[in-house]
This record gives sequence, structure tokens and C-alpha cells, in this order.
Amino acid sequence: MTGAQDSGSDPAFAEAIRDQAEATIAMRRDLHRHPEVGWTEFRTSALVREAIVALEPDTLRFGATLYDGLDRLGVPDDEILAAAMGRAAAAGVSESELEPMEGGFTGLAADLVGSGPGPVIAIRADLDGLPLSESDADTHYPARAGFRSQVDGVMHACAHDAHTAVVVSVARALHRMRDRWAGRVRLLFQPAEEGTRGADAFVRLGLLDDVDAVLTFHILSNVGLAAGEIAPGVSDMLPTEKFVVRFTGTPSQFASSPERGRNALTAASGVTLLAHAIPKRPGSRSMINVGRLVSGTAANIVPASAVLTGEIRSDRMDEVAELAAAFKALSSGVASGFGVESAYEVTGYATNPRCDVGLMDRIAVDAEHAGLAVREPVSLGASDDASLMIDRVQQRGGVGTYVAISGGAYHPHHSPDFDIDDRVLPAVVELMVRSVVDLSGSGIPVGT
Amino acid sequence: MTGAQDSGSDPAFAEAIRDQAEATIAMRRDLHRHPEVGWTEFRTSALVREAIVALEPDTLRFGATLYDGLDRLGVPDDEILAAAMGRAAAAGVSESELEPMEGGFTGLAADLVGSGPGPVIAIRADLDGLPLSESDADTHYPARAGFRSQVDGVMHACAHDAHTAVVVSVARALHRMRDRWAGRVRLLFQPAEEGTRGADAFVRLGLLDDVDAVLTFHILSNVGLAAGEIAPGVSDMLPTEKFVVRFTGTPSQFASSPERGRNALTAASGVTLLAHAIPKRPGSRSMINVGRLVSGTAANIVPASAVLTGEIRSDRMDEVAELAAAFKALSSGVASGFGVESAYEVTGYATNPRCDVGLMDRIAVDAEHAGLAVREPVSLGASDDASLMIDRVQQRGGVGTYVAISGGAYHPHHSPDFDIDDRVLPAVVELMVRSVVDLSGSGIPVGT
Amino acid sequence: MTGAQDSGSDPAFAEAIRDQAEATIAMRRDLHRHPEVGWTEFRTSALVREAIVALEPDTLRFGATLYDGLDRLGVPDDEILAAAMGRAAAAGVSESELEPMEGGFTGLAADLVGSGPGPVIAIRADLDGLPLSESDADTHYPARAGFRSQVDGVMHACAHDAHTAVVVSVARALHRMRDRWAGRVRLLFQPAEEGTRGADAFVRLGLLDDVDAVLTFHILSNVGLAAGEIAPGVSDMLPTEKFVVRFTGTPSQFASSPERGRNALTAASGVTLLAHAIPKRPGSRSMINVGRLVSGTAANIVPASAVLTGEIRSDRMDEVAELAAAFKALSSGVASGFGVESAYEVTGYATNPRCDVGLMDRIAVDAEHAGLAVREPVSLGASDDASLMIDRVQQRGGVGTYVAISGGAYHPHHSPDFDIDDRVLPAVVELMVRSVVDLSGSGIPVGT
Amino acid sequence: MTGAQDSGSDPAFAEAIRDQAEATIAMRRDLHRHPEVGWTEFRTSALVREAIVALEPDTLRFGATLYDGLDRLGVPDDEILAAAMGRAAAAGVSESELEPMEGGFTGLAADLVGSGPGPVIAIRADLDGLPLSESDADTHYPARAGFRSQVDGVMHACAHDAHTAVVVSVARALHRMRDRWAGRVRLLFQPAEEGTRGADAFVRLGLLDDVDAVLTFHILSNVGLAAGEIAPGVSDMLPTEKFVVRFTGTPSQFASSPERGRNALTAASGVTLLAHAIPKRPGSRSMINVGRLVSGTAANIVPASAVLTGEIRSDRMDEVAELAAAFKALSSGVASGFGVESAYEVTGYATNPRCDVGLMDRIAVDAEHAGLAVREPVSLGASDDASLMIDRVQQRGGVGTYVAISGGAYHPHHSPDFDIDDRVLPAVVELMVRSVVDLSGSGIPVGT
Repeated sequence: MTGAQDSGSDPAFAEAIRDQAEATIAMRRDLHRHPEVGWTEFRTSALVREAIVALEPDTLRFGATLYDGLDRLGVPDDEILAAAMGRAAAAGVSESELEPMEGGFTGLAADLVGSGPGPVIAIRADLDGLPLSESDADTHYPARAGFRSQVDGVMHACAHDAHTAVVVSVARALHRMRDRWAGRVRLLFQPAEEGTRGADAFVRLGLLDDVDAVLTFHILSNVGLAAGEIAPGVSDMLPTEKFVVRFTGTPSQFASSPERGRNALTAASGVTLLAHAIPKRPGSRSMINVGRLVSGTAANIVPASAVLTGEIRSDRMDEVAELAAAFKALSSGVASGFGVESAYEVTGYATNPRCDVGLMDRIAVDAEHAGLAVREPVSLGASDDASLMIDRVQQRGGVGTYVAISGGAYHPHHSPDFDIDDRVLPAVVELMVRSVVDLSGSGIPVGT
Repeated sequence: MTGAQDSGSDPAFAEAIRDQAEATIAMRRDLHRHPEVGWTEFRTSALVREAIVALEPDTLRFGATLYDGLDRLGVPDDEILAAAMGRAAAAGVSESELEPMEGGFTGLAADLVGSGPGPVIAIRADLDGLPLSESDADTHYPARAGFRSQVDGVMHACAHDAHTAVVVSVARALHRMRDRWAGRVRLLFQPAEEGTRGADAFVRLGLLDDVDAVLTFHILSNVGLAAGEIAPGVSDMLPTEKFVVRFTGTPSQFASSPERGRNALTAASGVTLLAHAIPKRPGSRSMINVGRLVSGTAANIVPASAVLTGEIRSDRMDEVAELAAAFKALSSGVASGFGVESAYEVTGYATNPRCDVGLMDRIAVDAEHAGLAVREPVSLGASDDASLMIDRVQQRGGVGTYVAISGGAYHPHHSPDFDIDDRVLPAVVELMVRSVVDLSGSGIPVGT
Repeated sequence: MTGAQDSGSDPAFAEAIRDQAEATIAMRRDLHRHPEVGWTEFRTSALVREAIVALEPDTLRFGATLYDGLDRLGVPDDEILAAAMGRAAAAGVSESELEPMEGGFTGLAADLVGSGPGPVIAIRADLDGLPLSESDADTHYPARAGFRSQVDGVMHACAHDAHTAVVVSVARALHRMRDRWAGRVRLLFQPAEEGTRGADAFVRLGLLDDVDAVLTFHILSNVGLAAGEIAPGVSDMLPTEKFVVRFTGTPSQFASSPERGRNALTAASGVTLLAHAIPKRPGSRSMINVGRLVSGTAANIVPASAVLTGEIRSDRMDEVAELAAAFKALSSGVASGFGVESAYEVTGYATNPRCDVGLMDRIAVDAEHAGLAVREPVSLGASDDASLMIDRVQQRGGVGTYVAISGGAYHPHHSPDFDIDDRVLPAVVELMVRSVVDLSGSGIPVGT
Repeated sequence: MTGAQDSGSDPAFAEAIRDQAEATIAMRRDLHRHPEVGWTEFRTSALVREAIVALEPDTLRFGATLYDGLDRLGVPDDEILAAAMGRAAAAGVSESELEPMEGGFTGLAADLVGSGPGPVIAIRADLDGLPLSESDADTHYPARAGFRSQVDGVMHACAHDAHTAVVVSVARALHRMRDRWAGRVRLLFQPAEEGTRGADAFVRLGLLDDVDAVLTFHILSNVGLAAGEIAPGVSDMLPTEKFVVRFTGTPSQFASSPERGRNALTAASGVTLLAHAIPKRPGSRSMINVGRLVSGTAANIVPASAVLTGEIRSDRMDEVAELAAAFKALSSGVASGFGVESAYEVTGYATNPRCDVGLMDRIAVDAEHAGLAVREPVSLGASDDASLMIDRVQQRGGVGTYVAISGGAYHPHHSPDFDIDDRVLPAVVELMVRSVVDLSGSGIPVGT
């Protein structure tokens, strides 16, 4: 922990951080004004790219080439992609910037290198907003202060705007003091965290395979932290699987030949109801929700298609897998019972790694130096696909954590009134910078 | 039709019939007092056997040997068989009579031969009663006249007692005047008509394969015939399939390990509900009923078994088959969706043959000679597995019909108050005897 | 029938008809190019209005004033109305023409008067197209001949374009020879026949109350008529009720507080399945279809709303009412079982009047004079809310029929390939004109 | 704790206990041979009564007068009561003993008094067996040793035979040394613990209202205690509610008039499925099981009645109540949706009191004196209606506990192979006697 203390008392260090303070808040508000849902973060990715390119990274992967032909989970329809790309163009993103992202290939991965050999430390930011209309009430600060979402029906209601701005500032500060740290910092700007969709591709791309420590974090308003407080890790990340089931039957004119139809709605509503009957272990936090069902065309046609959207949550990884298998079996059983086809598609998932104790201890010290009050790890009770990254790093012998940072006591996440007090962001930047310097200088702590 | 007229004016003929009148009614009332449900007609079969053996039949098949190792549909549980056999023994049926019927091998098939070569004419009686407690109201004639069912929970509420008594008397009369007719009369005393279970075995045994004309009949109180009226045939026999589906899951203690259970009741109630969604052709009379469901043991156990009893009816044979296939697919689909096994078992069925016009014409004349008023064929709107016999005979080039005979305007079939005016029975015996003599003497009429 | 014969041999008459031939076909094709769904027939209504105004009608009701504050069934959402109005404006309909129709007040009712007192004869045309994309195959004549729908997702696939063009031409011909007929002709250009929505308002407005004879007709490709053939009436119009049920529950974050949600999708899918279990009379043509279900927003939210669209059909009016009551009871029962609200809304209906024999006889003669081959009344087996108009006229002592006209043997109605051979239209115009002249001259025949 | 130590070293005390050892085991085996299900413990109650009467109790309530006209939960059908009473008579219970219990009024409550004033201490035994056929395998000790159940389909598979025998012996020992303790001991021989049915009546009768300490106990094979070990209390008693819902519809002949039926099976299977959709709090141990469904009569009848048996469990009392309310609402909602009546009847329930720490401490000391090894309180994870008694006593300011006693590591409760090592029973008797003497001599410890 010597490193952390050293940097703390270093005026150059303090200056590098301080210089980013305003830029961080400004970038967060700019992103807030231009939210983009998962896999459509065209403008966001372009801005990030511009910022990172200026730092002369050792490597930078972007656009379709980043994904190297890999399948991605939960990519939206072409129409949604096209509309979002249109908005990005209208907002000033150039054709040449957009082109490599066509098809929703958003996100960016880049490596900065320090001075001399050292560990590989990854930092993750998530880029996407939510399909939600932001409040325009006077009581809503972004509305009052003029940085409310300009896109009807899309909103940053989960602080990813802040996460992105923080990691850009961290990168700038690290670049500026690159003689103060060793090794390599991997910047992971991940698309589509909502629906726990995007991390899977980053993990399968191998971006975490050589990482010694992965730092993930979230600004949270609902875990009992007061303003200015952080927890260096969390427990109770909720394993989850998100899915879509598509039922395909045969249409027919109902009044004249119903017997020729194969009713996809009957199958889908049967599955929707019967899914509740899938047994769960007593006392586990296992749950299945069908959150959306769309089927059919008109009153006089036997519905030939149905699309069901749902999710499984549990505090047990094995039970998520069991329930997913049961849901699949049920869908295909009931569908086959009516001569209907069903196809189950995973659109996202997350796991529940343990945050490493040694790493949390280091971050706690770094946080205090950054002027943040440190609390015990909090119970998250929610899902984040950062979990996949932590899992992978731990599997390869490295360490990881998920730092919880108070966003001030505002409205719940995913609500039209959600907001954070962004005056905390400079301290978060400082925490991340200190952590990198600290970890790079003294070796990676061993997980427990 | 000369034959019929001749016999009508023949005093010996009249005497042969007249002598049976009292015996017919007496036997009907005796059988009424001792009803036996399908495949348990032990006492009934023994009585019939005794009567037929006395007529020195050319062939007689009885007991297990009658069935020749063939599977039968809808045979009840061993307990039910044992209880019924106990009742038959208590009612005086000897051990040696009962023994060949052990396992529910009731019924009898016998051939009488006339004088010289001639056609094979089959007459069918059904033997079984219903699982129903007979009324003991003073307004119920069998109660008042002292021949109410002596077996609690079993009752002849569909006139099969009368059918059996009639055919025994017909056999006696034909035996007595066996020089007056040619060929061969096959007497078919069929078990288990209720649930349309028994005829299938008789048909598969080949008992109809060489038959030139098959005469089946029913005393009916609900088809619009007044007392003393008959219709020489019916339309609208309803095709049907009866079935049982057994669901087998895995039990588990619900409070401690529900996830280890495979809930047969969930599957069975799912099928019970979803079966209504199987599409039917518009305007067809197609229907599916789940009439009974029994599942589970106690509140705190995940149900591991369920038995569902149902039937399909339609005015279209093809739709019965389609709906049965759909029900089977649904059962196995839903069951598999919950890790439960399902087994669909056909327990009975019936078809909808057309009654032959030429044969109906002959019977109409015979009926008038027997003093019965003849009406147009009536619409049956119900199922009888006599249909299988008519079908088979027609497939082999013969003819058949299903004669409807008024039982007087009493209570509905299958009700505790059902009764018939049995004074009509001697005329029915005469009709059948005249028909045999008529048909044997003049060749079998060609169907249309 | 003297009148009909007279007009047939009258050169002025022949000329009046002949002059409309080309215009009828041209107008049909123009309308075909610009289809508009129910209650959005803005351009269609404006064109019809222009044509009828030129004929100096005695009365003309149009726009919101036509409906006199009356509720209408099945009016689409504001967005759909606005989009359609925008298309009409873009197609050249002026602001002043559109303004009175704002809110979907389409359609028109006008009276022409003949020379001297006589009966009131109503003729009905329906105006609307279907939400369907028209085929662009070379084999599809409208595509080849250049009059395919210019509106993506909307199509005249039920010949209402032809009906409208015919009645406009009939009006023109009647106007030209107004000295040849007596009384009053009521032209009813009804919106929203699809979904059997529009006639209800016309009837409740009293537009049929003083009518002595109502002539309704449909060009049909599926009732067994060959090209050039008509049937002067139909049997088996199918009574129907169309409905929407809206379920309103309470949303909640699924992962954290599912118990606070009231799941509208559970209620709606329960009703969707259980509705199949509503019993129907055996042998009736009674059917219930849930043709569309839309519910919920996202995988992690308990769905708080669901909209179910369905219809009931039967050959029995009483059973339509019974089934509708049962569906309503089921919806409210199941919804209440989950703490969810349900609201059942009728969006359309039709009945099954008998076509008057005397009127059909007259039309048969008129049709032969118009060069059309006349066949027996056909079985329709479909629903049309023209039935409500016939019903009302008959209730007030008048007569009515629904004339079936062959459209040539093309693709099924409501299919992307639907087309008619519009060379038949001039003869249809002639038939209608002859019928009016005939009926006006000789009194209205008495129904049977 | 002086008292306990004193009695421990007292030869008279030791003798009083020792004398009961053989009798306890003998009585347990006699009861094992004659198991009786809840509310039919006729022979058991008569034996207990005989034993207690001999001790000249201060009060004794028995038979119908015990219940004072109060309703009881979950009393079986008259047939089951009659059959069980017949078995009791056949086993030698006299008419005069049986008569007061007619109607299932089994159980007994009696008070013994010590020397001088002191606290009221209640001890509870449960009397009933289970509807289960006992194993006759050689590996099953009761079978080998000749005390297997003589009643087919009934078995003591939850150690209530031992509980009853223990409390009878405790009573005898206390009577013998009644000069050694003060106050009053209330002996509660409660019927129908299975299904948590019987305690409710005892509590509502006021039998616990003046009690200072209530001792309840269970011999358990599944809570991790080794032979000779006890825990002086338990945590995690599971609140539960058991219920029956009766659905009453209208029967009809399915083939002819299904529309006249009101299908109780449709309603009941709907509720069975939809009940799974009742939402539960995440992470609670809340569960709903429909364990049994019986409906309908025959394939061709619309089912007019259905009886559904189920239970709710939770670790939260409030959630049991919420789920019960939801199940009731669902039953009545779905039933009303089909014109069917539903009636929800509570047949049993239990709660989750905390065992008092001070009392547990005393019992721990007493147990050690009795030669039993004492372990920490165990997690029960099951329901017992002894909870109602503890609750009531605590509400009135007294204390209570539920002592867990190892029965040896045998087969699971409620299995055909369940057995206990009854050599432990004398020590259990001693523990209870010591506890009474201890508590009576030194005042009742204060709960925490």
C-alpha cells in the first residue's frame, strides 16, 4: 500500500486528477442528453473512440472488427439499429465513424501501457441507456439544468453515462502519468449491459484472458450507501438468464377453417401460465418472469406467431440452469402438443462471483485516499454482466471486484426520475486511478 | 315378404311366441334386480348360458376361451372384478360356472341352426348395467313392484336387461320352430356396451365375418317414439372414442424438496384445460370431454400420478380420429414439458354406419305383423358399439340395422328413475323372430 | 315487372348506363391504388362527396355532423387516424375537405329524389380496405396493370373499392334519368365494414328507419358463382361479435418485489386459454377466437397491462349473446382472481337476417335484363354488418337482400393476391339502376 | 437448578422413573400395532383415559364434552369415522367407552395436582397415525419384532405412538411423586396433529390460557441429532395453512347438452394451474401445493363437483395469510368465471413461535441429568401445530419450547420404513419428569 500513499502526496498526481473533474461531469451530461440503447451506442462509441485515440493506445479494437465474427446476444431488430444510427448521424457522427459499427457493432477495447512491465488491469464501463422516457418535471435536476434526454423514449436511468465518462477520464489521467505506473491497463467500453447482453461477447473475445485484476463498478442509489460512501465490493449478485421464445404455428381463417390453424398464441399463453408451475427449491431466490407476450394479428385469424420475453433469476447458478432447461422443455412440450414450433434463444445472462477480499482491502485504502468513506461490502440483489468478466479473470488466477458507489439518495434505477449527484464523479476517477497505480506498483493481491 | 305373412297366419308360430311372453318379462325383472357393470356380467352370463345350452346350439363360446387371448377394452380393476364375482357367487352362481369367467371374461356367442342351408343372421344383446344407484321412490315402478336393483350403486338404467331377456326368448322361439327357418342364427350376448367397450372384441374375434345380416336394437325413451312404435333403423349414430390417460411423475415431500417432484397433477390439469383449445371444424358436432380426474394423495406431497378419463364425440369419423391424435399429442407434449410420463389408452369406441334401406323395409313389414306401429328412421344422436358390428357386416357385403323401439315415455336413460314399460317385450320378441324367419326364407335384402 | 322490361328496351336508359362503364372501372382502380382502413377513409369519402355533391342531392350528411355525437365502434387510435389523414392530405385532399372528418368521421349519406312520390330505396357501399400488404407479383393483375396499392400495409382485398365505385356510378345514372323513377334513393357509403364496425352507427342514426327496401351487395370470389353470375340473396350470414378486453394490473420490478405486482399477462393468458372451455351447443357453428394478445414491456417487469382482441361467431344469435356473456364473466372472474381489472368492449357485430324472397325474385329478373346469369341464393358462411341494415328495414316492415356477385374465380378474400375481374362492374351498375327503377315504379314487393 | 440436581440424586425419584421404563416401551408398541388417523384415535384415547383415570386427576375432559360444541378442523367423513370406530370396537374398546367419542371427539385433557401452590405446566402428546401402509420387510424392526401395524393403510410413521406412551408414563411418575412438586400439570393428549388440525381446538377451548410453561416435544430422525442427543428447542418451525376447496357446478349429459353444464373440473384445474402464478416474495420460503384433486364421475358427464386439497407454507406468517387470501380470491374468481361455486375451508394451520431461551436452558440441564447429550437448537423446517400452543402461552406471558429428541438415524418420517429406537423413551420420560419438578420448584424462567 506504499504506492497508494505515495501517489496521494504527489502534487503531479493530484493535478492530473483535478484537471479531469470538469471534463468528467461535462461528458456525463453530454452522454445523458444523447442516450442510446444496447448495441446502438453509435454516438457514445464514437465519442469514446475519439477520446481514447488521442491517448495513443497500444491497441484499439472498434466496430465489426472488434467482434471478429462472433455472435452477440440480444442484438435488436434492423429497424431499431437503423433508427438509432440515423439519430447518431443527425447528432453529428460522421459517415466514416458510423460505417464500422453498422449492424450494431458498438463498444471499444483499448490498452494503455505504463512504464515497464507490470500486471494487466482491466477497467469496465457500460455504455447503454434504457428504453424509457425521461421525466421533464421541474423537480428532476437534468430537466431543470438542461441536460435531459433529447431522445424520446430513451434515457440514461442507470448511470451508465457516468460510468463511461469516469473511465474516459481515468484513461486520460493514466495516460498523463504513464510514468507512474507499470504494466497495461485494458479499457473495456462494453455495450448492452441492460439485459446482461454485452459482456458475454467481450469475455468470449478473450479480452479478459490475460487480465490480472478487473475493476468494475456501479453508481447505485438503492444499496444503503450515503452520499460520498463506497463499498469496495458486493455480495449477492443475482445470477440470471434472459430469453426469448418464438412460437411458430400456422395461420388460418378462423371462421371458415380453424382446424387448419396451429395456434401459436394457445401454445404461448399455455407456456406463460404453466411456467409458474416449474418447481423451485424452497428458500432459494429463484424466480421466472414472462415480462412480455406479443401474438397474433386480427380477431378473425388463428394466430400463427407469438414472441415471449422472459427472465430467470436465482441466487443459485445451478438453479438458473435447471429452470432454463425446464422452461425450454415446457415450451417445446406444450408447443409440440399443439403442432407448433418453439425456439428458445438466450439473450443475456449474468453470474454471481465473489469479490476478492485482498483486492477489496486495497481499494478501500485507495478510496479513503480519494476522500471517499468506505463501508462494508453491500448486498446487491441485482444482476450485472460485469460478473462474467470477474468470473473469467478469477478462473485464470486473477482477481476482481465490483465497487459500489453512492450516487446520492435519489429515485430508483430504471425510473423516469432517476438521477445521480455527479459531483462525486471526480472522486471516483481518482479512486480508479489510485487503484491502478497502487495495483501496478505492488503486485496484484491474492484473492481469497 | 311372403314368408313373413305366412308365419303371421300360422298358429304354431303364434304359440311359440306367446309361450315366451311371461318368461321374457320375468327374466328382464330378474336381471333388473341383479345388475352387473361391464365385464362383470357374471350372473347374467351364467343365466344366459344355462338358457342357451338347453337349446342345443351348434356352437357355443363362453368365458376366457371365447376371447381366445385377445385384448379387451376398458376392463375394470381387479378389485371391481372380485367384488362383482363375490356378489354373483352370493347370488347362487356356482364355482364351476364362475371359473371360466375369472378375469371378467363375460358374454357368450352361440349359433342355432335351422332346417337346411341359408344365410347367417346375427342378433345382438348387450348385458351390462350402470354404476348408478336406483331410485327407491314410490313413483318408480321397479321399486313399487319389488324388482328394484339389489346392488347398491349398480342399476339397469339403459334397458340392457330387457335386451338380454328378449334375445333369450327369441332363441327359445327359434329353437322351437327350427324347421321353419333355414341357415344359422348367431346369438351375440355382448358385455360392456356402456363406454362402447365390448363390441370391439366380438368383431375382432371374427364373429361377424360370415354374417349376412346383423340385427341390433335398442329400447329407447328419448327419440320421439310413442308407446308401441318402432323405427326400423336410425341415422346419426355418433362416432366416439373413450379414453383414459395416465400421468406418472415423481412424488416428493413438498415442503422440503418440491424440486425433486415431477408433478403429475400439473400435467393432467394442464391437459384438461388445454384440451378445450384443440380446434374443431366449424359446424361439426365435435366435442371433447374430460369427465373425471383423480390425482394425488395428500396436501403435503407433490402428486405423482393422475388419471384422466374422457371421451371424444363427433358426427365425423375422421374428426374423431383427428381429435384423438391431437389429445394424445397434447398429453404427451404437456407431460414431457414437466418431466412426466403419459399413456393414452383407448377404452372404447363406436362408429356411424348407415342402416340398410332394404333391410329396414323388411323389418318394417315384420314389425307391423308383430303388431307394432312403424315410424320413419329416427335420429339417434348417441353412440352404441353395435355400430362396429354393422360396419363389419357391411364391409363383408352383408346388411345391418339398428332398430329403435319405444320403451314408453319415461325418465331419461342413465337416470336413477329410468324405467321401461316391459309389456312391449313380447312384441319385440315376435318382431325379431319374424325377421329371422323372413330373412332366412327369402334371402338377405341388398343394402343401399 | 313491367318497369324493368320497359327500361330495358329504352335507348336513353342504355345510354345512361353505358356512359358510366369506363368511369366505374377507373374509379375502382383509383380507389384500389389508395386503400384506407376503417374509419380512416378520408380520401375515399372526399372523392365520393365530390361526386355526389355534383348530383345535387336532396340531403347530404358528411363528417362529424353525420354522426351527431353518436359513439362509434372500433375507431382506431389517434396515431393511426393521424397517419392516414396525413396520407390523404399528401394525396391531394384539401384541408377544408379533411377538417370535418377529423377524428375518423368518414362516410357519407345522401338522398337523391326521383320524379314524384314513391318508396325510399337504400343502397349501401362499404369504403374500407384491409391492413395487408398487396402482392407485387407479376401474376397479380393490379401490380401488372399499374394500379396496385400505393400504401404499404393497406390493401383493398375485399372488393370494397368496386362496391364504392359501383354505387357512385349508380347514383350518377339515376340522377341522369331521374324522371324515370319515383321516390327517393338513399345512398349509404358506410365506413369500417371490416370488423363489422360501421353499420351499427348508420342504423342507430336512423338512416334505415324510413327505408322501404335496402339493397346490399358483395362481389365474392368464394361462393361458387362463375364469372357473370349472381345470386339475388344469400343464406347463412354469420352472426358475430368482435371485442377487445383490456386488463390492467400493477407493474413492479420483478426481481425485487414481484409480490407487489398484479400481473395482467397472467390474467390475460389465463382467459385466452380458459375461453376455449366455455361450452357450446353440440352441432352449432359457435366459435370463439382470441386473435391477438399484446402484453408487457420488458423481461424484468411484471406486466401491468394486456390487450386481447377476439371474436365470437355462431349460426345462432342467442348463442353469440351467451358466449359473449360467458367470455365477459370469465375475463372478470379470472382477472379478479389476480387483483387485475378487466374491461370488455364490443368493437363490432353482425346478425343473420333472411333475404326477402319477393325482393330476390325482382332482382333476379333485373339481373337477367342486365345480362347477368342468375343462380339460386348461396350460403355465405361469413359475416357482414349490412345484416344490421337489413334487420332494421325488415323490423320496420320493409324488405332487404344481400346480392352476391361473382368477381371471377380469383384468390381468396383478405389475401395479398385477391383481385376481381372488374369488367363485370358495368353490369352490376346496370342491375342496381334497373332494380331501383323497377322497385320505384311498381311498389316494393312484400317480404316472406 | 438446585431442584433438578436434588431430584437427580434422590433414589425415590430414580425408582419412580425406572418403574415406567418397560411400560413406556410396551405401550408405544401396543399403540404402534393399532394406529388410528386424526380424529379417529378411539382406541388410543380410551387407553389413555383408562391410564389417567387411575391417577385420580383433579380434572379430566374427554369425548364430545371436551370440545364443548366447538368446531374442529379437518374432521374426516362419517364413513371413515365409522370404519375406525368399528376397528376400535373389534379391538376390544367397550361401547360405553366409545359412545362419548362418537363423531370423532377423541383426545383428552387432564390436570394432576402436586403438593401446594405452584405454576401450571402443560405437556402435550399427539395421538394420531398416518394413512400409510407399514413396511413388512424383514429389515423393518417392528415387522421383525411383531409389533407392525395391524391396520392395513394406517401406520404410526411419525412417532406419535412414542409421544403418547411417554406422556402417560410421565403422568404416572408425577402422580407417584406428587409430594415432590407443586402446582398443576396439564396433560394434553391432542388428536389430529397430522395436517396440523387438532391443536386449534385445544387452544380455542382455553386449555392453554392459564399455563405458565408448555412443554412440547418430538422424536425426530431428520434434524441431525445422533442417538441419545436432544436439542432443548428448535428454530424454523414452518407456518402453514392446509385447506380444501370444494367446487360445485351443474352436471349435464356431455354429448347432448354440454352448454347446460357448469364444469367444476374446468374451474378446479384452472385454479390448480393458476395458483402457481400467485406471486411470492423473493427469497421467502413461500410455497403453495395442490396435493390432491378429485373430480367428476364418467367420461360422458360434465363434472359437477371437484375437491382440491392443498397447503401453503412459508417462513413468514404474513405471507401465509397473503397467499391464503390470494388462493381464495383466485378460486372464487375462476369459479365465478365458469358459473361454478367455490368454498374454501381451512383444515389446519401452524405458526412459528420462538422457543424461550430461559426455558431451553433449564431443559438442557434437566436433559443432562437424564443422561441425554444436549445440542444447540436445531432448524426444524417443518410444521407442527404445537406451535399454536406455544404461541398462546407466550401471548399470556408464559413460556414454551419444542424439544427435539433423536429417534436414532432411521428412515424418513412419513415413510413405510419409518422407525425409532424406542430404548431412548425412558430417558425422555425422565427428562420430562425432571423438567416438571424443576420448573415447579423454582418458578418459571422468563422467556427472552
